Amino acid sequence: MTLTRRYRFAASHRLHADPLSEEENRILYGKCNNPYGHGHDYVLEVTVEGVPDSSGQIADRASLDEMVRGQVLSRLDHMNLNQDVREFRTLVPTTENLASLIEKMLLEHWNLPARLARLRISETERNAFELEIAR
Amino acid sequence: MTLTRRYRFAASHRLHADPLSEEENRILYGKCNNPYGHGHDYVLEVTVEGVPDSSGQIADRASLDEMVRGQVLSRLDHMNLNQDVREFRTLVPTTENLASLIEKMLLEHWNLPARLARLRISETERNAFELEIAR
Amino acid sequence: MTLTRRYRFAASHRLHADPLSEEENRILYGKCNNPYGHGHDYVLEVTVEGVPDSSGQIADRASLDEMVRGQVLSRLDHMNLNQDVREFRTLVPTTENLASLIEKMLLEHWNLPARLARLRISETERNAFELEIAR
Amino acid sequence: MTLTRRYRFAASHRLHADPLSEEENRILYGKCNNPYGHGHDYVLEVTVEGVPDSSGQIADRASLDEMVRGQVLSRLDHMNLNQDVREFRTLVPTTENLASLIEKMLLEHWNLPARLARLRISETERNAFELEIAR
Amino acid sequence: MTLTRRYRFAASHRLHADPLSEEENRILYGKCNNPYGHGHDYVLEVTVEGVPDSSGQIADRASLDEMVRGQVLSRLDHMNLNQDVREFRTLVPTTENLASLIEKMLLEHWNLPARLARLRISETERNAFELEIAR
Amino acid sequence: MTLTRRYRFAASHRLHADPLSEEENRILYGKCNNPYGHGHDYVLEVTVEGVPDSSGQIADRASLDEMVRGQVLSRLDHMNLNQDVREFRTLVPTTENLASLIEKMLLEHWNLPARLARLRISETERNAFELEIAR
Repeated sequence: MTLTRRYRFAASHRLHADPLSEEENRILYGKCNNPYGHGHDYVLEVTVEGVPDSSGQIADRASLDEMVRGQVLSRLDHMNLNQDVREFRTLVPTTENLASLIEKMLLEHWNLPARLARLRISETERNAFELEIAR
Repeated sequence: MTLTRRYRFAASHRLHADPLSEEENRILYGKCNNPYGHGHDYVLEVTVEGVPDSSGQIADRASLDEMVRGQVLSRLDHMNLNQDVREFRTLVPTTENLASLIEKMLLEHWNLPARLARLRISETERNAFELEIAR
Repeated sequence: MTLTRRYRFAASHRLHADPLSEEENRILYGKCNNPYGHGHDYVLEVTVEGVPDSSGQIADRASLDEMVRGQVLSRLDHMNLNQDVREFRTLVPTTENLASLIEKMLLEHWNLPARLARLRISETERNAFELEIAR
Repeated sequence: MTLTRRYRFAASHRLHADPLSEEENRILYGKCNNPYGHGHDYVLEVTVEGVPDSSGQIADRASLDEMVRGQVLSRLDHMNLNQDVREFRTLVPTTENLASLIEKMLLEHWNLPARLARLRISETERNAFELEIAR
Repeated sequence: MTLTRRYRFAASHRLHADPLSEEENRILYGKCNNPYGHGHDYVLEVTVEGVPDSSGQIADRASLDEMVRGQVLSRLDHMNLNQDVREFRTLVPTTENLASLIEKMLLEHWNLPARLARLRISETERNAFELEIAR
Repeated sequence: MTLTRRYRFAASHRLHADPLSEEENRILYGKCNNPYGHGHDYVLEVTVEGVPDSSGQIADRASLDEMVRGQVLSRLDHMNLNQDVREFRTLVPTTENLASLIEKMLLEHWNLPARLARLRISETERNAFELEIAR
């Protein structure tokens, strides 16, 4: 059985690949390459998998929230991804790369009995990225 | 191919484990342990899997609705889970346990040609529980 | 200009009018009269009206949240309206009466510069109640 | 990793199987058999799977949109499925059959580096159909 | 105080003004003029206004539903507006005209104690039409 | 009768009032004052009011879209409000001030037969700002 819990954070970013020319960046990323950046309200869904324990729960909601807030939201919410997040100094902050970073942030400190099974992050209501976590 | 159909029901519950002390229950379940209970509008998604028959459908919508209403909604909608549902006299009505009970309610009387493949139940807009049904 | 801010709370209730017979209550309130109650995830929208001050805001978000949490959510969230809320010992907790009670709870202690202009409360995704606050 | 992108189109249809009698059609499809048809706002979610390339993307959004618009939306949006779509002259336009047709429309011309992994189509907010694409 | 209740219906239509040429219709209505029509899932919100009676309700939900189902949904749901609705034989079935027709359908037989105050109809998630009913 | 049409744009901003100290800004705007800014997916609803003309429409959808795209979205979408929008060089880009700017952008060039009646802008799913336009 899985439990999926939904979180939200607001952040800004600019898509720009340093090795490419201004012109190539403009073609590749379109208006997401605008020089001063823009932003989104990201929706992050964290799915954990397990068997209900004697309390009837597969994960303690408070512990899961504390993990996601401490490892992820406190570093991304109301931030400029390019400026405020060390990993994006050399990596383009596409939502694909953001999903991989969030996976890393969570797995590094994961200590809940339930397994981290899946991450889903929506950039806008039209785009969602999903990552199955290998066992 | 799968068809997922969405149903809603309103119910109340109180999370309380009899073997534990008042204090332990309060710590474990937080405000969900409040003595007189509280409630939710649950969203239940039932997924069936099959191959379209000559009518172009993998399941007859009316038969599926009748199954879900008869076995599940008639017993849970506008009910107090702790008081009105026999199984929850001795089992804490967490949404995890509720998902397992709904699986049992449906499988006991399942007679549709399409296979019951997945259940998903949302307790609030922040929490969803998903259960894959073994073949 | 108005600012509308959205809050959520979960509660249970039973609709039952003491002066009426069991039979009359059953006819009047239908399954909302079930003896042990049921519950909902209520959505409360609080609208305040004003002119942006020098900070560019018509209301400080933190002060508004504190007001709504202190006066309303702390008394209703995860509660049984019939048992836990004094006012509903003698009043049927329909969403209409709940809207009026929330208006009273807020107006009694309102000390924000912006005027409380409107309340909207949804009981389910099909029902919403709206109250314009007289100037 | 997968990217799911959401599209919308409006179309009308009538469910009617030619080999069956009027009476049998009426019983089988209910009000979906009404003689002059009715319509829906379909939501189509296209999921592609791949590994982010050096641009940090698993699929170029513009190329994916062009593929879906050119192969699918241009043929279905604001159309009468029974009259305007050749394939439905001899096939009942249930959403199951529509999902299979969209799969065929996309696979026939698929030339994106990312693999087409899944299609999901909602007919109304209560019904969704999902198709995993075989590797 | 007002109560707003939400209903849904699916219908098809074609926008075409008989006095205009084919070319003028095409320019005026765009793809909504496609010859065989298309369809939508309409969302209808009916708002009534009143004072809670001794039952704590401003309108009996069952009576309101019966009124809307009998006067409106039974004539529009799963229908082709141009073919199945007499009034649209000579009137273009835009959502504006549909809103006015629904107002007329309801006012002709309105017998509820609460006043019909407002109608809102969404054609798609991008378009909504609202009509205040004069006292 | 009114028509409300919904648009979306993504932008970033930083709330900072130049006359105030760093400390005062931090207290006033909280994490919205983070130095490198953050972003949102704004939802803009534009409401126009009028009487349906002989085409059965109170406003031509294409003309309304062109107006909103030309005057508003082209200047705000995928922009950094503080850097890219001249008006916000000296004005804090709160959503209140953004709503007033959009009103000004639209009224300056408004040439549609229908009256601009109301603007509503949501910053996140929890906050919405509404502006009635004086006749």
